Amino acid sequence: MSETARRVVLASRPVGEPTPDNFRLEEFPVPQPGPGEVLLRTVWLSLDPYMRGRMSDAPSYAPPVQIGQTMVAGTISQVAATNYPNFAVGDLVTSYAGWQTHAVSDGKGLRKIDPKGAPPSAFLGVLGMPGLTAYAGLLEIGKPQPGETVVVAAASGPVGSMVGQIAQIKGARAIGIAGGPKKCAFVKNDLKFADCLDHRAPDFPERLAAACPKGIDVYFENVGGAVFEAVLPLLNPFARVPVCGLVSTYNATEMLTSGPDRLPVLMRAVLTKRLTLRGFIVTDFAAKQPEFLREATAWLKEGKITYCEDVVEGLENAPGALIGLLKGENFGKVVVRVAPESKR
Amino acid sequence: MSETARRVVLASRPVGEPTPDNFRLEEFPVPQPGPGEVLLRTVWLSLDPYMRGRMSDAPSYAPPVQIGQTMVAGTISQVAATNYPNFAVGDLVTSYAGWQTHAVSDGKGLRKIDPKGAPPSAFLGVLGMPGLTAYAGLLEIGKPQPGETVVVAAASGPVGSMVGQIAQIKGARAIGIAGGPKKCAFVKNDLKFADCLDHRAPDFPERLAAACPKGIDVYFENVGGAVFEAVLPLLNPFARVPVCGLVSTYNATEMLTSGPDRLPVLMRAVLTKRLTLRGFIVTDFAAKQPEFLREATAWLKEGKITYCEDVVEGLENAPGALIGLLKGENFGKVVVRVAPESKR
Repeated sequence: MSETARRVVLASRPVGEPTPDNFRLEEFPVPQPGPGEVLLRTVWLSLDPYMRGRMSDAPSYAPPVQIGQTMVAGTISQVAATNYPNFAVGDLVTSYAGWQTHAVSDGKGLRKIDPKGAPPSAFLGVLGMPGLTAYAGLLEIGKPQPGETVVVAAASGPVGSMVGQIAQIKGARAIGIAGGPKKCAFVKNDLKFADCLDHRAPDFPERLAAACPKGIDVYFENVGGAVFEAVLPLLNPFARVPVCGLVSTYNATEMLTSGPDRLPVLMRAVLTKRLTLRGFIVTDFAAKQPEFLREATAWLKEGKITYCEDVVEGLENAPGALIGLLKGENFGKVVVRVAPESKR
Repeated sequence: MSETARRVVLASRPVGEPTPDNFRLEEFPVPQPGPGEVLLRTVWLSLDPYMRGRMSDAPSYAPPVQIGQTMVAGTISQVAATNYPNFAVGDLVTSYAGWQTHAVSDGKGLRKIDPKGAPPSAFLGVLGMPGLTAYAGLLEIGKPQPGETVVVAAASGPVGSMVGQIAQIKGARAIGIAGGPKKCAFVKNDLKFADCLDHRAPDFPERLAAACPKGIDVYFENVGGAVFEAVLPLLNPFARVPVCGLVSTYNATEMLTSGPDRLPVLMRAVLTKRLTLRGFIVTDFAAKQPEFLREATAWLKEGKITYCEDVVEGLENAPGALIGLLKGENFGKVVVRVAPESKR
């Protein structure tokens, strides 16, 4: 049998918004696992905002994907062949196999998932990296107290939706921000946030102020830009701002935009309100993973958290889906169904 | 005996740099202490950058001084008459008596000082509010580790000089920034910082980079402006930035200065370098006061810390001294000798 594998590589670096030209779909022979290795078939592929950063060679916390290299991604993969006693054919694992149908692994970084706990794709979202990002950033940096107000943007997305739901579980009042009435309705009605505001409304800053009559104690920053500008004057003394992402700026071609210069305003607010701003990346909190998985699985089973997936069919549609995600066109966690799960 | 008391009141709010016109020297009858009260004679008056904030009615962490009110200040005062059994005539206390020669107090907020521990004026500087500011901000927020690089501006001033010296006591490498060669020489030779750079040098950013070959792990922010701009690219991953003051901006008439807008650059650095920026005010750490006083007094006696005072003679010279302090014209902690200490 000479099955053909497929992968999406970075064809060129984007300037501003990525375009389909920045990606190239390639075929390659299915690799064979060596001693101590397993062959993985990708079932689900996760698309996430951080991927825009890896397409650039600007300095960041992780090295960029090189031109011609397979795009990085977390996956749910299934063991298709094994020379590694810890894994059996059919096992489902989380992996960083990237944008490809097949990958060989020496087992490092693979984690078996329990498909009885939740559908496999949930381990890329609500029970995966976005879930842990929300959990650790909110609880370790944001530290919401009962009765406090927690604001989060991209509230229908995988991180934002968990931030608000966990905040409410902890007794805080979650105010979401999202793009458009459909997403706002989902956040209010399905995710049960106290409120959700459309950042596209012309009077968005006034609406946000009205929705936060006691000010904002925690602002979970995952978008940057105009939303942060509306949040800043509402922050209470001793407010905490976990900074997890700035997706509104990821496609910017020029970091130094025209003035006015708002840096002195921010620093004055940090000083006089005694704010804490702290950047983090989910891997900084890898040690919280077991505790997170235990708690989040329980919340899911108890119906305390809800999630929403935006399912894209086929690896060939991943580039378009990532381009859309960076524009906020997705609705919920974007996962690509690369192949059906084989019988276990 | 009809002794006359004197005070300096806020005559008008400054626009930009304060001028002598913003202050007015007044005479008033020496007040008499009622039951349970003491009469305090001011011996030493502390001048500090925060006073510029109190002269404005812009929102801040403390209410502004009202027009016609006595300017606020910490003092070393001596008990001149007492109806309060805990205090005897001649006792030296720290107080917030303000810019005046006499004040009546019900005893709240007074703390007796032990003049055997250090000269009384030191309790306004190295052993007072500036010392605690440095101690708490550096150790509670900056958390310097042995071998790390700690940078502080206004390094010859009362806060900056303590930050660097405590950093070195804790095994970190202190790099100071100061205005002019005389201050820099003092910081290097007397305070024993690893290095000190003149922020007025045209190639200051390059010199700072050269002085911090392993980057910056803690930047104790007390000035803002151009110094912060030079520091930002040098901050290491997981660097901590206690924000204690922004003296370079206190006289600014317009917070929104012309561009470019550096806010997105800062937020990107916070995210990708996982920085912590945290504003604080010394009163947030009031509980650390006894521990600080014990440690700092010991360091002083052991010769591990050195300090420098800029002594101004006479209450009438306080306005000019504050104006100069806000321009960086002082050399060391500014204290006003209001009256000689009486025999105890």
